[in-house]
Amino acid sequence: MSLTLSSAQTIVATALAEARSRKAKPLAVIVLDAGGHPVAFAREDGASLFRHDIARAKAMGALGMGDDTRVLAERAKGNPAFFQSVSVAVGGNIAFSPGGVLIRHQREVIGAVGISGDTGDCDELCALAGLHAAGFNLENAK
Amino acid sequence: MSLTLSSAQTIVATALAEARSRKAKPLAVIVLDAGGHPVAFAREDGASLFRHDIARAKAMGALGMGDDTRVLAERAKGNPAFFQSVSVAVGGNIAFSPGGVLIRHQREVIGAVGISGDTGDCDELCALAGLHAAGFNLENAK
Amino acid sequence: MSLTLSSAQTIVATALAEARSRKAKPLAVIVLDAGGHPVAFAREDGASLFRHDIARAKAMGALGMGDDTRVLAERAKGNPAFFQSVSVAVGGNIAFSPGGVLIRHQREVIGAVGISGDTGDCDELCALAGLHAAGFNLENAK
Amino acid sequence: MSLTLSSAQTIVATALAEARSRKAKPLAVIVLDAGGHPVAFAREDGASLFRHDIARAKAMGALGMGDDTRVLAERAKGNPAFFQSVSVAVGGNIAFSPGGVLIRHQREVIGAVGISGDTGDCDELCALAGLHAAGFNLENAK
Repeated sequence: MSLTLSSAQTIVATALAEARSRKAKPLAVIVLDAGGHPVAFAREDGASLFRHDIARAKAMGALGMGDDTRVLAERAKGNPAFFQSVSVAVGGNIAFSPGGVLIRHQREVIGAVGISGDTGDCDELCALAGLHAAGFNLENAK
Repeated sequence: MSLTLSSAQTIVATALAEARSRKAKPLAVIVLDAGGHPVAFAREDGASLFRHDIARAKAMGALGMGDDTRVLAERAKGNPAFFQSVSVAVGGNIAFSPGGVLIRHQREVIGAVGISGDTGDCDELCALAGLHAAGFNLENAK
Repeated sequence: MSLTLSSAQTIVATALAEARSRKAKPLAVIVLDAGGHPVAFAREDGASLFRHDIARAKAMGALGMGDDTRVLAERAKGNPAFFQSVSVAVGGNIAFSPGGVLIRHQREVIGAVGISGDTGDCDELCALAGLHAAGFNLENAK
Repeated sequence: MSLTLSSAQTIVATALAEARSRKAKPLAVIVLDAGGHPVAFAREDGASLFRHDIARAKAMGALGMGDDTRVLAERAKGNPAFFQSVSVAVGGNIAFSPGGVLIRHQREVIGAVGISGDTGDCDELCALAGLHAAGFNLENAK
């Protein structure tokens, strides 16, 4: 199954609605397909200029390593020399903070969402809200 | 006046509706703010992988040179050596085909839209439909 | 409100006058607009070759993250893996040392100044002198 | 002899005064030292976003090839394949249009000025006005 624009737009819209209900700082939200190519993006008014690049690096990092950036950020703390070399080797397409989440349909990875703007924890909660609304990652839902 | 996410999303949605009414090939549509930073993006199902980068290069090229890419494409035909050197000097952030259109509120440039996927002429018509629906570039409207 | 060349030149000239009165090492001073594009730059005689790039990375980093580099440098100490990944993700457009200061007119961010050459503290004092002389960031002035 | 900031600022100020007297479009003016590193820069209000990069590519191209960009633009017309490969080989640090002029003190090259914004001919005239006012390139003056 491949990720549709319609699903990606549901993810973005729901993530931003969640952000507003949490009074989060202005966010950038990107959805990438399984090949790491952008499908949908939105940057809220007032979000600073790097939010696009950081959101994309979170999403691409998750896809590239096969794990959510929450996991990667933990690993990077334990092995900084390796993960710094990865960061450069992949042209900056990774960011070590929660908020980059693989999009899973049943067990298949069909893309990733990346969010930047508030704390990594808040960014990730908004991402998960978007994924659940679009019918993905439901086996992880609490 | 600065471009809002709400306006940018209107531009994207209307451009894609125009594309469907014209039975255009699948498109990518990006909206950049006045500084060239992404505000909103969508890539339709089936659009090929470079459509994001080409759409962004059209929008950024228009902003960077201060003219729509229809004008730049004409100029590049008359002076290819210069415009090819510009293309490299600006890191590929320009594309010489219609479909990159400055967003003007009254006389002020507040951003640019870039579309790629069908012919340059069709891409540009979809861009203009989006701009007019959002209340921009109305002095140019026929 | 957008930053004018005239204001940017006042910032540069006053920052350099402040540097001479403090007998600072030779400085580079850059002023960027709200989109991160250069408006004015000066490098003093004897300043070493990287001063331009470091000054620009300070100014761009402040704009990109929405905080002065004094704040970013503190944050980077507490979360080095994330901020190093950001550094690569944004193409080196950030530097973790004081001397990158957002230019605020009332509450709006209209650009940033970046200075490199002496200590980060001295660089920042020169930046603030320039900003105050041009009528900006006055609510922060002591 | 090395280029001073004071001389570079005279070049920039005089070039911009010349531009205003000619009612030129808004310009960007950069002065590089003999090593190709920026000494002074100004971008006039309303100049489009790529003007910095194009001005710098003109100045750096002149230094890099040892000829003014008027000469290089002519040569590129006669040998486009070679000059396009050079453009990529040097990372875009060259632009094939008049307006990049070597700064000569007696016979020594001590830097270069690059201007972008109007026609190449107009850009170059403004550059020469700046150079003459600062006491350089006088043997070429008409």
